Amino acid sequence: MKNRNATAGRSHRFAYNGLDRVIHERARLGVITSLIAYPKGLPFGDLKELCGLTDGNLSRHLQVLQAANIVEIAKRFEHNRPQTLCRITSQGRKRYLEYLAVLEQVIRDAAVAVKAGPERKRTLAPT
Amino acid sequence: MKNRNATAGRSHRFAYNGLDRVIHERARLGVITSLIAYPKGLPFGDLKELCGLTDGNLSRHLQVLQAANIVEIAKRFEHNRPQTLCRITSQGRKRYLEYLAVLEQVIRDAAVAVKAGPERKRTLAPT
Repeated sequence: MKNRNATAGRSHRFAYNGLDRVIHERARLGVITSLIAYPKGLPFGDLKELCGLTDGNLSRHLQVLQAANIVEIAKRFEHNRPQTLCRITSQGRKRYLEYLAVLEQVIRDAAVAVKAGPERKRTLAPT
Repeated sequence: MKNRNATAGRSHRFAYNGLDRVIHERARLGVITSLIAYPKGLPFGDLKELCGLTDGNLSRHLQVLQAANIVEIAKRFEHNRPQTLCRITSQGRKRYLEYLAVLEQVIRDAAVAVKAGPERKRTLAPT
């Protein structure tokens, strides 16, 4: 089995278990990156706009992030109007940095893989 | 509203719609990166081992990838034993490269964000 040799000793090489699913989900990745960029916190409306999400979608993702202690949410008054302020927690920042390290590994693996494997045959022919 | 100013003109800045969900899912990201690294194709068993997936999980993800024309699957005989060979398609390779470009943007945004926002206060206090 020639292909067996090609991958020998590379068990789980592309498993990427460190890609924390709570953070990896596309919309949440945008939400968390926004909150990392604005560590003092962002009002719900601004976060919604930055991430291109609907009220319902953002609310749902914030619930997940709050339950995971990645984001904290506070109600406050700004110019006498109630405002929901969302902020990254210190634990959330730590988890995000760990996630980023794995994401950077994916990028490095991908760069090597893309270089190693230029497009060749276009169809699979049984041998 | 001071925070309004901070994000003005940055609408959808962190939306990342280019993060193709078919590819972004953690297990599938590993599967596709493996197949990019082995453009001649990989037997099912080798792919399973590289990605640290169960038979059932890998089968399910391959179905999604095959339906999206990202992966092609062929049955063949290797040393008189039937073998399932999985390979990236040319369209799959193209989509993966497009996905990677967005992923690299996330990494760049994250690097700026992390630099901009060191950890400050640990709790949200209403103002």
